[in-house]
Amino acid sequence: MPQFSLQELADRLGLAVIGQAQTRISGVCGVDPGEPGCIAFVADSRYLERVATTRAAAVIVGAAQSEVATNGLLAEHPQWAFAQVAALFALPEGPVEGIHSDATIDASAQLGPGCAVGARAVIGSGVVVGGGCRIGAGTTIDRDAQLGPDCDVGSNVSIAARVRIGARALILPGAVIGSRGFGNVPVAGAWRTMPQLGSVRIGDDVEIGANTCIDRGALGDTLIGNGVKIDNQCQIAHNVVIGDHTALAAGVGIAGSAVIGRHCMLGGQVGVNGHIQLVDGVIINGGGKVLQSVTEPGQYGSGAPLMPVGQWRRFMALMGRLEARLKRLERKPER
Amino acid sequence: MPQFSLQELADRLGLAVIGQAQTRISGVCGVDPGEPGCIAFVADSRYLERVATTRAAAVIVGAAQSEVATNGLLAEHPQWAFAQVAALFALPEGPVEGIHSDATIDASAQLGPGCAVGARAVIGSGVVVGGGCRIGAGTTIDRDAQLGPDCDVGSNVSIAARVRIGARALILPGAVIGSRGFGNVPVAGAWRTMPQLGSVRIGDDVEIGANTCIDRGALGDTLIGNGVKIDNQCQIAHNVVIGDHTALAAGVGIAGSAVIGRHCMLGGQVGVNGHIQLVDGVIINGGGKVLQSVTEPGQYGSGAPLMPVGQWRRFMALMGRLEARLKRLERKPER
Amino acid sequence: MPQFSLQELADRLGLAVIGQAQTRISGVCGVDPGEPGCIAFVADSRYLERVATTRAAAVIVGAAQSEVATNGLLAEHPQWAFAQVAALFALPEGPVEGIHSDATIDASAQLGPGCAVGARAVIGSGVVVGGGCRIGAGTTIDRDAQLGPDCDVGSNVSIAARVRIGARALILPGAVIGSRGFGNVPVAGAWRTMPQLGSVRIGDDVEIGANTCIDRGALGDTLIGNGVKIDNQCQIAHNVVIGDHTALAAGVGIAGSAVIGRHCMLGGQVGVNGHIQLVDGVIINGGGKVLQSVTEPGQYGSGAPLMPVGQWRRFMALMGRLEARLKRLERKPER
Repeated sequence: MPQFSLQELADRLGLAVIGQAQTRISGVCGVDPGEPGCIAFVADSRYLERVATTRAAAVIVGAAQSEVATNGLLAEHPQWAFAQVAALFALPEGPVEGIHSDATIDASAQLGPGCAVGARAVIGSGVVVGGGCRIGAGTTIDRDAQLGPDCDVGSNVSIAARVRIGARALILPGAVIGSRGFGNVPVAGAWRTMPQLGSVRIGDDVEIGANTCIDRGALGDTLIGNGVKIDNQCQIAHNVVIGDHTALAAGVGIAGSAVIGRHCMLGGQVGVNGHIQLVDGVIINGGGKVLQSVTEPGQYGSGAPLMPVGQWRRFMALMGRLEARLKRLERKPER
Repeated sequence: MPQFSLQELADRLGLAVIGQAQTRISGVCGVDPGEPGCIAFVADSRYLERVATTRAAAVIVGAAQSEVATNGLLAEHPQWAFAQVAALFALPEGPVEGIHSDATIDASAQLGPGCAVGARAVIGSGVVVGGGCRIGAGTTIDRDAQLGPDCDVGSNVSIAARVRIGARALILPGAVIGSRGFGNVPVAGAWRTMPQLGSVRIGDDVEIGANTCIDRGALGDTLIGNGVKIDNQCQIAHNVVIGDHTALAAGVGIAGSAVIGRHCMLGGQVGVNGHIQLVDGVIINGGGKVLQSVTEPGQYGSGAPLMPVGQWRRFMALMGRLEARLKRLERKPER
Repeated sequence: MPQFSLQELADRLGLAVIGQAQTRISGVCGVDPGEPGCIAFVADSRYLERVATTRAAAVIVGAAQSEVATNGLLAEHPQWAFAQVAALFALPEGPVEGIHSDATIDASAQLGPGCAVGARAVIGSGVVVGGGCRIGAGTTIDRDAQLGPDCDVGSNVSIAARVRIGARALILPGAVIGSRGFGNVPVAGAWRTMPQLGSVRIGDDVEIGANTCIDRGALGDTLIGNGVKIDNQCQIAHNVVIGDHTALAAGVGIAGSAVIGRHCMLGGQVGVNGHIQLVDGVIINGGGKVLQSVTEPGQYGSGAPLMPVGQWRRFMALMGRLEARLKRLERKPER
């Protein structure tokens, strides 16, 4: 494992040291209880008191906290500084360098310098992969897809033909990008397949979670903006548009042609109806079901409370009779 | 890209031309705003006025609309005609022809004429694949599974032993068909594995979405009818039966031994309890939770409205006290 | 297909025969209607009458039911005895023996005796696989991961670097274990990646469903106890802890750092908020959303009833106005 002095970390990150600059740091930890030899962070001044009791060797604190009695670093964004330090201690995963001899790369595919490709990866004809990309074992990239530089693609990912992905994408195992949207035409009681002729275009600095699916457009493309972060097992249907820097927690489903604004946050298992719009800055609590457009930024939720099952069964029965009971009550004064 | 005259399209589809039969068509588009050189459609007469303003070169309209002032085609089902035209412009994806030299095909497997198999696909012993199938890169088909002719299987799909799939299946990347159902026996505070001895039988013309799972039966088979269309990330548990021409949107979960009728439509993230039945022609709105059998066809929904989070918190508290508040109100007249 | 006499089955399982010990058993079936030549079970004495009418050749009944007029076996746990008999009739799937010549196994990986590895599987450097494991086709196991003995891993599974899995794990196709948790730091309106330095540690006798995802910890590990059974398409976020013998039905999502007790049961599509705790012995009905810690064992549910869509729309409108209507009613007596 690497080791750094606080001074070395400060120099790398452009930060100021507090306390003893030669303190050795061999890892990162949480502040409570902390681990010897490691560096933690406190982002919220309410937790500053934990600095006094932590077992960590050093703590990254806010730039205004230079008076704190600890060894550490001063940072405008302590959590972001911590993330940068943590990256120094990340262990290798996936393909590290070179093209594995068991990868299948079409002769017409172009890989930029410094790419690593894992065993059993399949890169099709006309694919263009930017420099410094890592393509995991068993991942398939179909014809004419394009990836920008420095993408990190996990194992068993499926990227369809003609998908375009920007720089520095982080794509986790099992993700499916660009498979056909769910389009079928009812004809005389049966469904006929509607071809899906669009593709998927993804901006820079996007994260796509494990087993997440992003469908290609029916006509035109499904669009994922810059800096969008998508957790595992999300479903992005055809022709959805997601604005820059929006984040989706795991299990979010967005139906076709919905438009999600920028800087939105959708909690776990949120569902968004098709053909509606969420303006910029909308937050939906986990489990929320969004049936209609949301025209004002802010935080929203839906759903009913958890109850012991007996109470819940009475609640369920009550809900079905509620309107009638209220109407009866509202009529009473007239008697 | 291919090009067709309206007359050529009319001849292929058995339709009548309106306007100039030599109009060149090089793609498909939406009617509003439309794209030059492309053909659009209008299925609903309410939108016929868009024909006057579209930039599209031609429009497919209903058979009764021969008076519309446009170049185009007359079709009984404009959307279906449009789908057929769109298919003429679909670009290649996946394996196009032949068996890739990096595929692993057991000597005892039988592939019909005209199959294409992608790199790193694995086809096991005793597997039978009908003619004209396309098997995507990295897909595994385990022993003795059978696929009918003209199936299109995406990449990284897992098809388990002895699964039987009909003709013209469309199976998207990452789908898992025939893995064991979730069966465990509680014995003295621990779970013991219940073997799942059944399989999965799938009819003709079925679509199975990306990362969708269809479990094999515990005893007997999980059954998917003809023409069933299943979107991404659906979960079909062991011994479920889905009737012909039923459609499931993304994220639907159906618990074990549930029986879904024919011509049903389940919206996104719908959940269906185990061991219940839905008759033919049931529509469940997105997010609906179906706890009991549905015995009448029709459209159903469940769930609570989205609210700004402050209001929602009060709503959640109110729900917990609702029965008591109502009872108090209902007692008041007696005072 | 194998055949056994009742006596042979009784000897293998250490059970007593009732009726004719030489009855031939060539498979297993349900008791109603039953299949000739097969053995069924009745675990609940309420269903004992079915023994009289079943077409099954024999029935496993409770140890107290020795008076039942049937051929069969007496077992303390009839269903568990049935599971053991069923296992005798399970047909082969996945790799059965040996290392397929098309597998890619790093020279530094260690496989115990009796392992079977499917085609196109990829086993990375430093991986340790216990004896008797089966690794499915197309599965990737990244560097330094460890599996205990007798694990059964399906096809196209992704196991990340340094993940540790105990003995006898059953891992279904498409599962993703140990990919990075969803950690991002907001910095000046954009998200920055928080490295995820932990891993996943999984106990013995765990089942992990198809396309289920278990994220690695941010700091420290995500922990899955012994005997935990996880169905398909579940999402276990970073640093979640799941206690021994807990079972999750399909589609469960558990947000980061939640702690689930032992012997809990979470129904399909349940969602659990992050950083909360469920004590031992909590049961959450399917679809339930758990926003706060559950401190008492017992069964819980949430959600609203399914209604015909017209009634549901009125219900949704009513919910929004409910507080106002109640307050108006509660004011009336003062008039």
